[in-house]
Amino acid sequence: MRNRLAQLRFFLPKLKVDALFVSDPVNIRYLTGHAAEDGWLLVTALKAFYITDFRYIAIVKQVFKNQAIDIVQFDRSLFESVIQAAIEEKVGILGFEENNLTYYQFSRLKSCVKKRLKLRALSGTVEALRVVKSPQEVSSIREAIRINLKGFEWIARFIRPGVTEKDIYYQLQNFIRVEGVDFSFPPIIASGPNSAYPHARITERKLCLAEPVLLDFGVEKNGYKSDLTRMFFLGKMPRSFEKRLSLIRNAQEEAYKVIRLGVPSQAVDAAARGFLERNGLAQYFGHSLGHGVGLQTHEMPRVSSKSGEILLENMIITIEPGVYFPGRYGVRLEEMVLVGSNGCEVISNPDF
Amino acid sequence: MRNRLAQLRFFLPKLKVDALFVSDPVNIRYLTGHAAEDGWLLVTALKAFYITDFRYIAIVKQVFKNQAIDIVQFDRSLFESVIQAAIEEKVGILGFEENNLTYYQFSRLKSCVKKRLKLRALSGTVEALRVVKSPQEVSSIREAIRINLKGFEWIARFIRPGVTEKDIYYQLQNFIRVEGVDFSFPPIIASGPNSAYPHARITERKLCLAEPVLLDFGVEKNGYKSDLTRMFFLGKMPRSFEKRLSLIRNAQEEAYKVIRLGVPSQAVDAAARGFLERNGLAQYFGHSLGHGVGLQTHEMPRVSSKSGEILLENMIITIEPGVYFPGRYGVRLEEMVLVGSNGCEVISNPDF
Repeated sequence: MRNRLAQLRFFLPKLKVDALFVSDPVNIRYLTGHAAEDGWLLVTALKAFYITDFRYIAIVKQVFKNQAIDIVQFDRSLFESVIQAAIEEKVGILGFEENNLTYYQFSRLKSCVKKRLKLRALSGTVEALRVVKSPQEVSSIREAIRINLKGFEWIARFIRPGVTEKDIYYQLQNFIRVEGVDFSFPPIIASGPNSAYPHARITERKLCLAEPVLLDFGVEKNGYKSDLTRMFFLGKMPRSFEKRLSLIRNAQEEAYKVIRLGVPSQAVDAAARGFLERNGLAQYFGHSLGHGVGLQTHEMPRVSSKSGEILLENMIITIEPGVYFPGRYGVRLEEMVLVGSNGCEVISNPDF
Repeated sequence: MRNRLAQLRFFLPKLKVDALFVSDPVNIRYLTGHAAEDGWLLVTALKAFYITDFRYIAIVKQVFKNQAIDIVQFDRSLFESVIQAAIEEKVGILGFEENNLTYYQFSRLKSCVKKRLKLRALSGTVEALRVVKSPQEVSSIREAIRINLKGFEWIARFIRPGVTEKDIYYQLQNFIRVEGVDFSFPPIIASGPNSAYPHARITERKLCLAEPVLLDFGVEKNGYKSDLTRMFFLGKMPRSFEKRLSLIRNAQEEAYKVIRLGVPSQAVDAAARGFLERNGLAQYFGHSLGHGVGLQTHEMPRVSSKSGEILLENMIITIEPGVYFPGRYGVRLEEMVLVGSNGCEVISNPDF
């Protein structure tokens, strides 16, 4: 954590600020190791202040006892405390996270500013540090993936005609409990025509023979997430479905071929999308190809036709092409990939 | 829902805006009946637009088929679509929810504005409509409370020395499943010294004899929440604990006595706080007395020493005094109260 704070400090001059007011709980967790609830962080060139209220002081003192983080209790106004600490540290320009402060909070922060201090809106600063995973982070994600894959194997036996999507959800919840982990996000369990909704909700619908079930779920281990999608089919797969499933898998392979350090993530999306286009499926593929995964299920980099990021070694991204036929079904597969210097590792699937 | 949109339209002129851009998902749910995911609402004097992207169009068309809500699909920019619809409807001043738009989103919205259109920051507009509950809303909340109380009764048998806080959580999760409802919020299950943290997290700590267990949990039914706290004690209660528990209950009663239409919510907090002060406990009571409950666990009105709201008939608020002795234990009780024209009903406790 000390190293991460140091890394952020290294960037402060490049961001043209003397300090950063960190309000995003995930960024605070990344920088301090503590999953903050109603806590905020001010990082200056030399110090770090954790600002919270009465309710959390006892917990936080315990958590930060071995870290060089000053704890500040605020009674009336968080923003006043932030500005006061910044002024005491002789901060001239204070950066804030424009994506993690509401317009109202910004107005409050601004109203506390004294004449010499200036505010600067920043975005994606700590997020940019988070894109490249440390060996420890990669291990945590590998562990989440291991449990996730075990979950798919375990749940397969419950996927049969007559059970409802909700039944499957409860079984998956049992699995999560026994493994002592959490879901990364509310799972998607979509049967038959429900699978045509990219973000379907779990219903009481009973599974039927001769239809697919789309299962998109993730596991959280030590704060780190996994995010994988598998297709199941009840009974014998019709040729048409089999064909589409295999095209989706091939689209993933086209993406894997181009993934390596230095490649624009846009090119990865284009590789899969171009393949689906050549096979007449691109118009059914309406979302982006993937996204980074780490402390959040969706984080930088984006892997879409619009994204401007360049892939770096030890980024972890999903590759999840999907095609959706309203009223009929959808087909999506999702793997997680570790970017290497000269290629990639599909860490969620040893078959590649 | 039609009525709620009409009510909001009635307020638009008073708020000095021609239309409101609603970005808070709970407010959108309140106004449309639909629990929005990546969807936004623009309410003008005559029309309502629901703005979403490709992924949700199919679901939303289904949901709004009997409502006078225009569905707008945006491809590039949500904010462009909002501004465009506003301009087409000849909106001069567009209100936005300052608590539900990040500084970044505000900047984007602003950058789309054409010369004649003006933006105005608003807060608590739809929230102000939500404070007074309709008979249907009161029923939903009563139903959530009924299940919540059943949960306390059911879980009591599992509260015994040797089981962990997490064990109790899993049992409570089972209860929630069987009842076919959801938790309103992650429950607080705090044993012994953990109960001294007002917002304790669930741990693997084993319950011991001669200590209290604080259980703060809520149920969600049809989107409406309950939020109740009960104390359990393992073995015979020491006199000192019993005394404090009964003072907390008396503090609640002091609050009930003053609750009715027209009373400032501050006065309700003062009634309970004053009682605890006269009994030497006020310095251990560090949070506010209560809050409104509805589609959100915490919503308007606030019931604190700082709040400026006046109680109205059919508001539903919690009354939850608590005292905390670090390293030892905490005592909190929480009931839900329906404000009446000439008194109140403690809907979570027939004993009052």
